[in-house]
Amino acid sequence: MSVANDQSKAGSERIVISVDAMGGDRGPAAVVAGISMSAEENPQIGFVLHGPRDELEKLVAKRKALTGRVEIRDAKDTVLMTDKPSHVMRHGKETSMWSALESVRSGEADVCVSCGNTGALMALSMIRLRKLPGINRPAIAILWPSRNPQGFNVMLDVGADIRADEQDLLQYALMGASYARNGLQLERPRVGLLNVGTEEHKGRAELKAAHELMAATGPNANFEFVGFVEGGDIPGDVCDVIVTDGFTGNVALKTGEGTASLISELMKDSFMHSPLSKLAALLAYTSLRRLKKRMDPRRVNGGVFLGLNGTVVKSHGSADATGIAAAVKLAFQLSQTGFSQKLAARVASATAAAKNAGTDQAESSE
Amino acid sequence: MSVANDQSKAGSERIVISVDAMGGDRGPAAVVAGISMSAEENPQIGFVLHGPRDELEKLVAKRKALTGRVEIRDAKDTVLMTDKPSHVMRHGKETSMWSALESVRSGEADVCVSCGNTGALMALSMIRLRKLPGINRPAIAILWPSRNPQGFNVMLDVGADIRADEQDLLQYALMGASYARNGLQLERPRVGLLNVGTEEHKGRAELKAAHELMAATGPNANFEFVGFVEGGDIPGDVCDVIVTDGFTGNVALKTGEGTASLISELMKDSFMHSPLSKLAALLAYTSLRRLKKRMDPRRVNGGVFLGLNGTVVKSHGSADATGIAAAVKLAFQLSQTGFSQKLAARVASATAAAKNAGTDQAESSE
Repeated sequence: MSVANDQSKAGSERIVISVDAMGGDRGPAAVVAGISMSAEENPQIGFVLHGPRDELEKLVAKRKALTGRVEIRDAKDTVLMTDKPSHVMRHGKETSMWSALESVRSGEADVCVSCGNTGALMALSMIRLRKLPGINRPAIAILWPSRNPQGFNVMLDVGADIRADEQDLLQYALMGASYARNGLQLERPRVGLLNVGTEEHKGRAELKAAHELMAATGPNANFEFVGFVEGGDIPGDVCDVIVTDGFTGNVALKTGEGTASLISELMKDSFMHSPLSKLAALLAYTSLRRLKKRMDPRRVNGGVFLGLNGTVVKSHGSADATGIAAAVKLAFQLSQTGFSQKLAARVASATAAAKNAGTDQAESSE
Repeated sequence: MSVANDQSKAGSERIVISVDAMGGDRGPAAVVAGISMSAEENPQIGFVLHGPRDELEKLVAKRKALTGRVEIRDAKDTVLMTDKPSHVMRHGKETSMWSALESVRSGEADVCVSCGNTGALMALSMIRLRKLPGINRPAIAILWPSRNPQGFNVMLDVGADIRADEQDLLQYALMGASYARNGLQLERPRVGLLNVGTEEHKGRAELKAAHELMAATGPNANFEFVGFVEGGDIPGDVCDVIVTDGFTGNVALKTGEGTASLISELMKDSFMHSPLSKLAALLAYTSLRRLKKRMDPRRVNGGVFLGLNGTVVKSHGSADATGIAAAVKLAFQLSQTGFSQKLAARVASATAAAKNAGTDQAESSE
């Protein structure tokens, strides 16, 4: 994959990624195997790894690729998948998740990677990193396999918050476009607003208001607003960024995943149907592998938390080494392009523009 | 497919289906070809066909299977896909769609089939058939390919209304369960309420309220309430009926369709990649056809409008003869089981129970 155009932070400088070693379904061994893959592929990455020091030291020592590339921060507790976010917020100071966010808070890393409990990670990110000035609701953005040349579309919010008003949706558009510029190297991303029909009179009141705001903001914020889009456009090519509230986005994401997994099962059943179909499957092996690779969720492992002071990449809880390496690659790329800073600047400038517009209006109405 | 247990309306009696011949993308020829397929397969069906008499007479005369099976009702106008529902409500009296609904209104048919403009069909159905007493918002239900033994799940609402409060969601549960009993022959369907998490504390206020209502109603209304389900469960096997508002349901439906169609395209690309993969595709032909048939949307062609005095099957606008025949088969099955009457009775009994519960409560609090 080609690296983004803006190389301000690139060159021979080492890029440090903060990684929470704990809380994933496969334990710290999978995480260490994953960062080892990343280290082998990319000599520019360094890691701050968070978790129980003794356990991590042993795992890291086994990986030659990690020699001199990892700094371990001791954290004795682990956030479990069953822990309630409110509990973790009160009692989570000793967890590896808290510690991993601390590295972003202190500035030693721009981006943090964790495969732990999503709700707890968002809650801790909110209180430790805090929201960017001008952002009301942070969002989780994901990459969705699509018909577009870049192979993926950005969709947000997929579940940070079940509500979103028109101002939130506008902020999602700004953040999603910024992510598409830095994560997918699209100069001027096309943004669509998810609705149940593409006619402008359809849908909820906040969607109509958001439609107006986005149409007015796009020209000055370096994105092209294509208007309303429908569910079928999420994997389509009419836009690169799909904006919606976290309830709808989460249902759409899980529906898409569920449909893909059902098709994959049915395909297997079809090929196991008779001796002849088994032979066909054998001969079709390479073709089917190619398809599987194209749709493999591990290739794009990582929901990204946007709208905080710093960026958090949430890897799948069940991620294996390949999945972790994909999340680290995404974190590296965002860190290298200075994404966190660019996003903050973009939001600040949009907020200032909105305030000025408000002042202008107030003045002109005087 | 086995016919439902209740045969009260079956036997040798002819079942009349009202069919709108116009308004589909492929014109009346495809509709007549479709009902001809149905007539050949099932000697018990008769048709009332609505559209321009001259045109329809010529098309019907060409099909031997339709001799003596079709009554034509002349209607000179056609509702176009681009017509606004409000326009059709005011000026649509001469359309085939209006005429097709009239056959249900007059009682000569229980079920009407149309592949015309969905918005206009719902608007006309509301004013001509009227809502069932006790129903606030009618809903559109569809069948979704699933892991369940019956091969499909019911989901509603997929777009009749973008809003739904807890009472509407409860009514969707009652109507969806009734549809599953009559359309999928499930004695006691399992109903799930779509949300972003399965924990009871999650989600919007109306979902929590609907959760309580459904849990209280299920035992007396012949369905099993399984609680909250997620997007991944729509094609899954934890429930048979998925209840949601029309906004979320429409996005989920189109996301699922879009994902399936992207996978199918990518599969074709994979198999066209090299001479060897082309050979593999040739050998895998039967297996792939089997899969395609399993996922073929034409096999379950028909959204069903529920909550009206009479049932309306909305076929895909692009349906070909096979698709029309599938919609007619569904209409026949619902008509034969006396679905419209059973649904009305179910809603009336639930409404009465709710009123009594209200009275009981008032009495006991005195």
